[in-house]
Formats: sequence, C-alpha cells, structure tokens
Amino acid sequence: MFGSRSRPIPWSRVRLLRGYLDARRAAVIETTLPVIEQKCKESGAWDAWQMKWKSDMDISDGEGRPAPGVFLESDVTKWIEAAAYSLISHPDPKLEARIDEAVSMIAAAQQQDGYVNVHFTCVRPQLRFMDLRTAHELYCAGHLFEAAVAHHQATGKKSLLHVACRYADLLVSKFGTNEGQTPGVCGHPEVELALMRLAEATGEERYAHLAACFVRQRGQDPNFFLLERENPAYPWNRWWDPPLDYYQAHAPVAQQRTAEGHAVRAVYLYAGVADVVARTDDPQLREALLGLWKNVVEHRMYVTGGIGSTNHGERFTVDYDLPNDVGYAETCAAVGMVFWAQRMLAVAAQSEYGDVLELALFNGALVGISLDGRKFSYANYLDVRPGWHVTRKLHPGHRQPWFHCACCPPNIARLLTSISGFIYARSEDGVRVDLYAASETEWTIGEARVQLRQETDYPWSGAVRISVRTSSPVAFAMGLRLPGWCRAPALSIDGEAVDLPAVTEKGYAWIHRVWNNEVVLELEMPMTAERLHANPAVAASAGKVAIRRGPTIYCMESADQPAPLSAFALAKDATFQEKRNADLGGAVTLETSGVALSSPHLYSNQPPAVRAITLRFVPYALWGNRGDAEMQVWVNQHYDPANA
Amino acid sequence: MFGSRSRPIPWSRVRLLRGYLDARRAAVIETTLPVIEQKCKESGAWDAWQMKWKSDMDISDGEGRPAPGVFLESDVTKWIEAAAYSLISHPDPKLEARIDEAVSMIAAAQQQDGYVNVHFTCVRPQLRFMDLRTAHELYCAGHLFEAAVAHHQATGKKSLLHVACRYADLLVSKFGTNEGQTPGVCGHPEVELALMRLAEATGEERYAHLAACFVRQRGQDPNFFLLERENPAYPWNRWWDPPLDYYQAHAPVAQQRTAEGHAVRAVYLYAGVADVVARTDDPQLREALLGLWKNVVEHRMYVTGGIGSTNHGERFTVDYDLPNDVGYAETCAAVGMVFWAQRMLAVAAQSEYGDVLELALFNGALVGISLDGRKFSYANYLDVRPGWHVTRKLHPGHRQPWFHCACCPPNIARLLTSISGFIYARSEDGVRVDLYAASETEWTIGEARVQLRQETDYPWSGAVRISVRTSSPVAFAMGLRLPGWCRAPALSIDGEAVDLPAVTEKGYAWIHRVWNNEVVLELEMPMTAERLHANPAVAASAGKVAIRRGPTIYCMESADQPAPLSAFALAKDATFQEKRNADLGGAVTLETSGVALSSPHLYSNQPPAVRAITLRFVPYALWGNRGDAEMQVWVNQHYDPANA
Repeated sequence: MFGSRSRPIPWSRVRLLRGYLDARRAAVIETTLPVIEQKCKESGAWDAWQMKWKSDMDISDGEGRPAPGVFLESDVTKWIEAAAYSLISHPDPKLEARIDEAVSMIAAAQQQDGYVNVHFTCVRPQLRFMDLRTAHELYCAGHLFEAAVAHHQATGKKSLLHVACRYADLLVSKFGTNEGQTPGVCGHPEVELALMRLAEATGEERYAHLAACFVRQRGQDPNFFLLERENPAYPWNRWWDPPLDYYQAHAPVAQQRTAEGHAVRAVYLYAGVADVVARTDDPQLREALLGLWKNVVEHRMYVTGGIGSTNHGERFTVDYDLPNDVGYAETCAAVGMVFWAQRMLAVAAQSEYGDVLELALFNGALVGISLDGRKFSYANYLDVRPGWHVTRKLHPGHRQPWFHCACCPPNIARLLTSISGFIYARSEDGVRVDLYAASETEWTIGEARVQLRQETDYPWSGAVRISVRTSSPVAFAMGLRLPGWCRAPALSIDGEAVDLPAVTEKGYAWIHRVWNNEVVLELEMPMTAERLHANPAVAASAGKVAIRRGPTIYCMESADQPAPLSAFALAKDATFQEKRNADLGGAVTLETSGVALSSPHLYSNQPPAVRAITLRFVPYALWGNRGDAEMQVWVNQHYDPANA
Repeated sequence: MFGSRSRPIPWSRVRLLRGYLDARRAAVIETTLPVIEQKCKESGAWDAWQMKWKSDMDISDGEGRPAPGVFLESDVTKWIEAAAYSLISHPDPKLEARIDEAVSMIAAAQQQDGYVNVHFTCVRPQLRFMDLRTAHELYCAGHLFEAAVAHHQATGKKSLLHVACRYADLLVSKFGTNEGQTPGVCGHPEVELALMRLAEATGEERYAHLAACFVRQRGQDPNFFLLERENPAYPWNRWWDPPLDYYQAHAPVAQQRTAEGHAVRAVYLYAGVADVVARTDDPQLREALLGLWKNVVEHRMYVTGGIGSTNHGERFTVDYDLPNDVGYAETCAAVGMVFWAQRMLAVAAQSEYGDVLELALFNGALVGISLDGRKFSYANYLDVRPGWHVTRKLHPGHRQPWFHCACCPPNIARLLTSISGFIYARSEDGVRVDLYAASETEWTIGEARVQLRQETDYPWSGAVRISVRTSSPVAFAMGLRLPGWCRAPALSIDGEAVDLPAVTEKGYAWIHRVWNNEVVLELEMPMTAERLHANPAVAASAGKVAIRRGPTIYCMESADQPAPLSAFALAKDATFQEKRNADLGGAVTLETSGVALSSPHLYSNQPPAVRAITLRFVPYALWGNRGDAEMQVWVNQHYDPANA
C-alpha cells in the first residue's frame, strides 16, 4: 500500500501520553537507569572505559568474582543509548552530563586509526580482529554505533557520533571482499543493524553497504569462522567451540530457512537481514527472511513471543520443541523479536508483523523487568517452581537484581525508553499505526502540518480514539493495524461506520482521504479473554490451554492461589470476569471458575478429588511483582466426564 | 506373621521354568555376559586387574578417550558376580574357567595386608583410604565381596571368598569408632549391603557389625567427609565437591526422613540400612528406614519404579518433582529399588514392598536392557523424542551398546542372572511367595522335604498355580502376596475357595495348615488395563494418565503410531483390547480407541481437529526394541465437551 519504503516515526518525535507503556517507561527512567549506571560502576564496566582493564582480573574485585566478559564495555554503551532516549521526554541535565562524561571516556579510548574496543586495546592489543567468532568485537562496535545515533538524536551533539563514524570508517576499510580486505563477520550479530542505523542517521551509504556485506558474507564457503579457528597466530580461540549454526554461520544467510543457534544472535541477525531487504529488495535474501520468519513464528516461538528452547547454548532446537519448565526465552531475545518485527513492517506492511511485535513486547520482553524497574529476568520460563532452576541447573526463574552477564537489563531499558518509536511509521504517501498506545505525534506533508493524537487504554482496552488535525487539507493514507487476536473490529470516522473488509489489506485498515481540520477515528477492538490451544506437537503444552486477552498472555501465580499450581484446572464452561488492578500497574486480571484437584496418593487408579474454586489469572509480564513463587502459563482443562 | 526373620530362598535353590523372566535371563546369559566380558577387555577394566594401571591414561587408548573412572575394576567384579549366578542354571565350564582366571588376577592383586584396589595400588599407593568421599574405594570393595559370595555359592570354591574375607578383615581392623580406628564411610554406599552378604555367607558377625558401623557413622558430627576434604595431605579431593546430601551424609542416617542426593547411592544405602534393621531391630534406624521408604514411594518415585529426577547429580530433588522429559531414573537406581524392596520384606512381610519390587523390576529395571541383551540404557525418561537428549544435554533416551561409566549393564545383568532369588522367602515357620514367576524350589522342614512348583504366565497373566508336595505331613504357613494393583484376587486350595479377607494380613494371604502329599493352590489375579492418575502436584503428569495392567506400565511408541506422540489422546470411554505378541517377548500389548489431534497453527483459539484412531500401548520395559524413536508414558485424555 505504501508507495515507498516506510520508516518508523522516531521515538524523539512521538510523545507518550499517560498510560501503561508510559508508566513502564517512567519506572525505567526513574529507577532502572540509575541502577544500570551504578551496576556498571560496581562491575568495572565504567572503569574499563577508562582503560583500566590490563588483564582479565584487573577490574575484578579479587574475591573470586569471575572475570568480566569481553563485551563488558557494551553495558555502558547500552546505558548511554537507553539514557539518551530519555532526555527528550524527561530532560535531565545531570543525567546528560553523566552521559557526556561517558562519551568523553569513549572518545579518549579511541585509537589513532579509529579503533574502539577496551578489551582488545588493553588486554590483547596484538590480537585485534583475530577472533570475530567468539570475542564480540564487532558486537561491541554495534552497540557503540547505536548509542552514538541515540545520543546524537537526543542531544544534537556529534561527540559520540564522530567517534562512531571514525570507527565505522575503519571497519569499512578493513572488512569486505575486495583485495586486501577481510571477508569477516561477527560471531554475535548486532553490527549489521547498528551500521544500518548509522547509515540512516548520517546518510552515509557506505555503512549500509558494509552491513549488507556482513549479512551476505555470513556462512559463505570457505567459512570464515573455520579459517579463524585454525589460525595458529591466535592462541585463544579454541577454548569454546560451539558448532557453526550456533552463530548462524552454517550456511549463507540467503540459504537459511530454519532458525538455528543462539536465539539472541539469530534474531539480531534477522533484524539486520530485514534492514538489508527493505533497502535492497534482494530477492534471495527476502525469501530467506520470510522463511526464517515463518519458521520462528509458526514453529519455534513461545506463546509469549519468547524464543530459544534450551539454556544449553541459549538456542533454538527443533520445531515444536517448546518446553515450559526448562526452555529459555531470554529477555534479550524477546527484545530482539520486537526489533525484528518492526523491521519486517518496513519490508511489508502486514499486520502479522505488528501482532508479533506487540506479543513479544507486552509479554516476553516486559516480563523481563519488574514493575518498579529494579529487578530483571534473564531466562523466562512459562512454568516456574521454587528450586527448579537449581534441580535443572538453569538461570533462576525469578527476577534478580543483576547478572554477571548483564545484557538483559540495559536491553529492556533501551527498548522502553525508545518505545514511542515503535508506534507509528511513515512513508511518502501515508502513515501507519503499528502499535496502539496513548501518544501524540506530528509531521508535515508539503506545507501541511499533521497532528495525530491517539487516546487509548491499550493493552487493557481495545478502544482507540485517534484524532487527526491538519493545518490545511492534505491527502494521505492512514493504516490501522487490525490485530489477529481481534475477531470483530469496528471503525468509524467522525462517527460514521467504515466497511472494514472493504478497506483492509494485509491486516491493515487503510483510510485514503483528504484530511481537513479535525478528523476523529474510533477503532473498537473488543477484548475478551479466550483460550489458546498449542499445536498438539508441542509436547509440553498439548492438551492444555493458555489464556489470552487482547495482546496479553495470562498466567496463574501462587500469590493468588496456593502452590502447587499444577493442581488447578479450568472448569468446563469457565468464563472470565475482568477486573482492573491498581496494584498491578492498572492491569486487567481475570477471575474464572476452576477446580482444585487433590489426591492422597502419588499414583492411583482413582481420579483426583475435585473441588470448585475461583482461579485468578494475571498478565504473564506482571507475575512475580508480589513475591517470588510459582507461576504457570499453560493450564489443564477439566472436563468431568460424569457431568460433562 | 513370620516368627523369625525371613530370608530369601537363594537364586541357587530356585529353578526358573519357561516364562518371561527365564527368557530375559537367557538373553543375558547368552549375549549380555559375553558383551560385558568383551567390553571389560576393550575398556581396560580387565587389564587393570593385571595391575597395568600405572597412571590415569595407561589403560586408555591414547586416542582422546577419557581416563577411566577410579571404580573401573568393579565392572569386572560385577561381571564375575553376574556370570557366577548363571553357572547353576546354565553350567558352562569355559565360562567358569574364565571367571576363575579373573579370580586369579584379583587374588594376585591382593596386597600382603589384604588390601585390594587396583587404582590406589597402582596409581596412588600412598593415598589409600584418604578419599573415601569421592574415590569409590569401599564401593569397589563391596562389589568384590558380592562377587566372592556369588562365586562361592555357585561353584563351592573359596578362592575369591578368601580374598574377600582377608580384605574385609583389613577393613574391620581399620574402620570403626574404637581408639586407633578411622570413623570413615564411603561416598558411594555399597559396602554396607555387601558386608552383610559376606556375613550371611560366612557366618562372621564382625562383617555385619562393620556394615552397621558404616551405616551409623554416616553423617555424624564431626562430618567425616568435611574432615577428609580439608586434609592437606590429600591433594586430589577437592576437584569435585558436591554438597553432603549428595552422599546422604548431611545428617546421621537415623535422622534422615527424606531421600536426598544421588539416587543410586541413596538406594544402596537404604538397602544396607534395611539389612541392619532386619538384624538388629534398631528402633531409630527402623523409623528412619520406614520414613525414607514412605518418602521415596509416596513422593519421589516415577510410576515405573524409577528414581532420581535430574541428571544434574543423578539425584533426588523435591517431592512431586518428577519430570518426564528430563528426569533421570538410572537403570542402576531401579535395580537398587529391587534390592531395597527385597530387604524391606525381611524387615516386615508387607505386600507393598513386594509391589514396589515387581514394579521396579518389570518396568524401571528391565527397560534398561534390550530384549536381545545387547543394548542398555543408563537414564530412563518417560517421554523421549529424538534429539531431546542433545537439546537438554542428557544421557541418550535410547539404549546404547556401552557407556564410559558402565555401571548399568553389569548391574541389570547380575539382577537377572540371580532373579530366581527374588521369588521366595523362608523363615523358621513358613514360606512366602513375594514374586510370581514360573519356577520350582524345594526345602526341608525337619525330616520332611517340601517341593513347590509355581506355574504361571506372569506378568502377562494373573493366573498362578502352585503345587506343594511334601514327603511327609508337615505344618507350615504359606504367604501369597496379593498385589496392590489387583482388586479382586481369588484363591482356592485343592479346588475349594478360600475366604481371602479372613486370611489376609498386610497384603499377604496366609495359609496355615498341615501340608500332605500334593496340595494345589490356585490364585487368580484378574489383570485389566486401567488408567493411573498422578498426584496433581506432579506438574509434568497432572491431567494425564498412565496405563497399567497388572504390574506392567505401558507406553506409546512411534513404532506403532506416527510421531509426534503428544498429538494422541485417549478417547473418553476407551477400553483396552489385549493381544499377545510373539515379537515383543510374548508381551501383552493393548489396543484402544483414541484421537489424533492436529492443527495448522502453532497457537490457535480453535481447538485442534480431532480424528478417531486406534492407539497401541506396549510395556514400557519393551519400548525401543523395534527401532529407536519416540516414546511417551503419560498420555492426555480427550473429553470432547461437545459430545461428552
């Protein structure tokens, strides 16, 4: 429908109005950003940028704390990015000063030739770019570039952008397939999408070209990672040796059709691939991209939008292998799903991309941070019992204050401080509402200024009122995503009903008109709680149901009904009563009739005894905010055969 | 009911008649024993006994094969034990000669003071008895003692028994709580029950006394393992440091009430505790023993009789934590359950002990060996999908030709070659039938010779005909176990019905009479397939059912219906048709009506489509004999609410 490629209206141009996302963002700005800053100072990440990292243990505390990861510096660049996003909605000169202090450290850490990497500069200066496979060198570059773009867009300052461009220029000269260049790629994708952002922010096509080169070189024969691994000059790159598919380097990307390996790496790569496809329309990459999307969304994604089915390699496994009690579903991976889904919308304006965007955002990503912004989860199981993470040797199922590998807290923080950038997208001939959230934005078309105000209590209500004011009559198309969960949406324009089927294309309702003065669109997406059934091939969830209301996935937790939660089942004709809960971020919780099963035996030929009980379901993303205990998403249904 | 302590009628005095157990034993004798012997020669275990083990790698192949475990020698002693048992039912002079060859090696390996241990003699001669916690030294002693008893009882030879007694005498002088003795215990229990067997075979009470001392010293304060761990003279015992409960040494045994730690260690210890209680009637140990039994059987045991819920530490976890796809349930642990249950019957003649004995034997233990005796399983999940052991980093779910840690194959072998010793027990005033199996035995009471012949097709049929012939009239009591799975047993004596409730005590029907000439007892235990429900606190199985028929637990496998098995559910009113199967060891398999569920979606608010299908269930112990694929014990029930 869009005549040209669409781009999100950036976070800096969209104001969140009072609502759920605004409140979650406020907790990040007020609490999480200071927490991350403090943890970066405690962990040595901040000091590392002062080039104090002379050996693996230099910035450790000497108390047996494990040596920091080689990517420690990226905790600070992610914090800069997350904090920078907050400066427009929440101007804070002191915070800005501390960001600039960090930027100064980074600028001072840049080498004469533009190189920026603390670990390799301090600890292994002779080994630059010799272990792209495991050492996260270009991953760190990527996070530096993203921070630089955010810092520039938030403050107008070019201090970090200048550092980034100098480093990116070094990469442009170093990497590629020309004579004298290294045809290398990074073991942890990130630099691809970051270079695309840098290209977008600076208009420098060479960065986009390098991003595309990184995407296209991945998995080519001879395999760069295998060559690198055999390099006798690099003494350090055999200690850890996962298979090539762990890095998505088992085949050229254009030939990949199934999502393999480390889930965060995969989804960052796929986001970069989407950027390349949106820019270049490369038909082979497009086919791979659509195949990978289909494989993830139709075979390898949790009902929460989480991805990664095992902690062993934090990776994808096989189709329909989605265990609830072990699994993985890292917070970073759900954040990555949001990034990827948004970029898919630039490839094609199809509502299913927005559906996954909101699914991963409102469930798999937001579960990663407590309502107060103070605690974080790394892995997100769909079935948590106290002690299971010990007996199964897993990351804890409950949120923690921090992690040794602290990728998730700043990642969810940067998503939330930039969340206003995920709501709207524009192209030359129109605007799209991809995500419903109370917000305002404006733009110009020719001489006309367009002001859009979206009022809604989404995701707790499906009523959305959008007013569009224009300074002069102007024609453009507006697309409203009609979510897949909604069976009977209704739209009116200035009180007049729209024939939705007639205007719907690929899941978006498209309003083509001349907009004049104020036009009010009212979209009604009735939200009712309903049961979701997993594909019967999903062994862990076959025969059970999950509860969904709008874009929200629900769960039981033992704050509401006593453990063990496995002893509860939905009653046959259970209906759901909705209730708003001030103590749970204003969320809608659900009450329904269920049964409590009990038995005096471990095994018996008699069915368990049944007692009627009221069950309470809360949004999955909000569990664990009232104490840590048991939680369960998939629930049995109880059909009493005697009384069915 | 027994006036004095009962003892099993030993394997050497009971002839198996043609039947299921006889066939399983025959496969072990014909195939498994030669396989074990060969593997012992390939692995270096055999050579080790020739004292060729000078360093960890000496008996490795230099090809990167991992160094052998310190308990490598026990593979050979377990083979001697297993092979010796076979010599009475299947005399084989060549096999006996090879056993004697091994015995000669062991005798030659014995040190002047009686000490026998290859690893410590060859590799760490200065470090004897300094790492009881992790080095399996007394565990190896225990297996030597069990082999010696078997060898002596099978052949009448004293060559190995003599070695064992000399070593046991060294232990008697070394270990204990007297001045100058070491109050030590072994990290892997085994020596306790083995010393009891040695005491039984030799009549030497000092061995039983030492066994009791080992049981009582375990977990006492100061904790021996903590002292040992801190010993600076022993440089080698901190490399692996699980918590004390891993070794069941977290508290004195008399204070333990929950089954903790490594499941095989636990159940071997509990078997030894039962031996001590049966001999001494120690009230505190008895209370602990009954508490531990209750905890295992009512809270921590799989429906197959398997124990151990996690591969991390191969251990018990917490009550009701019995995952089907990860779990553990080592073959050795089920074998240990058989050992423990038999010893509980010497503590008290209660049918529940025999019920668990047959449950663990016919399911959790026998699943550990293929019908042809050629392949073995280590871990036994209740839910197996191809690749899951890779994605979950587990032992393979399918049987393997051998293992680096090869404890399981000789363990299931020695259980099966001695299985005739688990059928009957005697005390001064009677005889008990604990296990139903086609077999014959005889004994004398005073001048009278009693011949007992049991004809049955158990476990596939519950019809048992027992004829008792006496050479002269003699009074004694005969107890017949009435299994817990059987709701309507019927017994007749010479065609005359017995009022079972009137003669039943603790689950045994007791026939007190003067036996004269031939008396025929006919016990009818109707076997019907039925559904078992797990306690709703067992999260992995709540809402599902397992199928049991008699003592046999059933499963689906993809040899009979196509994967994924999770897509099948039992129909509401499913009944089971029985069929004998020559190709599955004569087993009864079950056919029933079910549904096949399917969906084109990963998640949908529409229930999966339903198609009627015939489902086939096979005995769990026999899965994987027709190719390796999927297997599932717990199955969903399908109640179609529309047609319920």
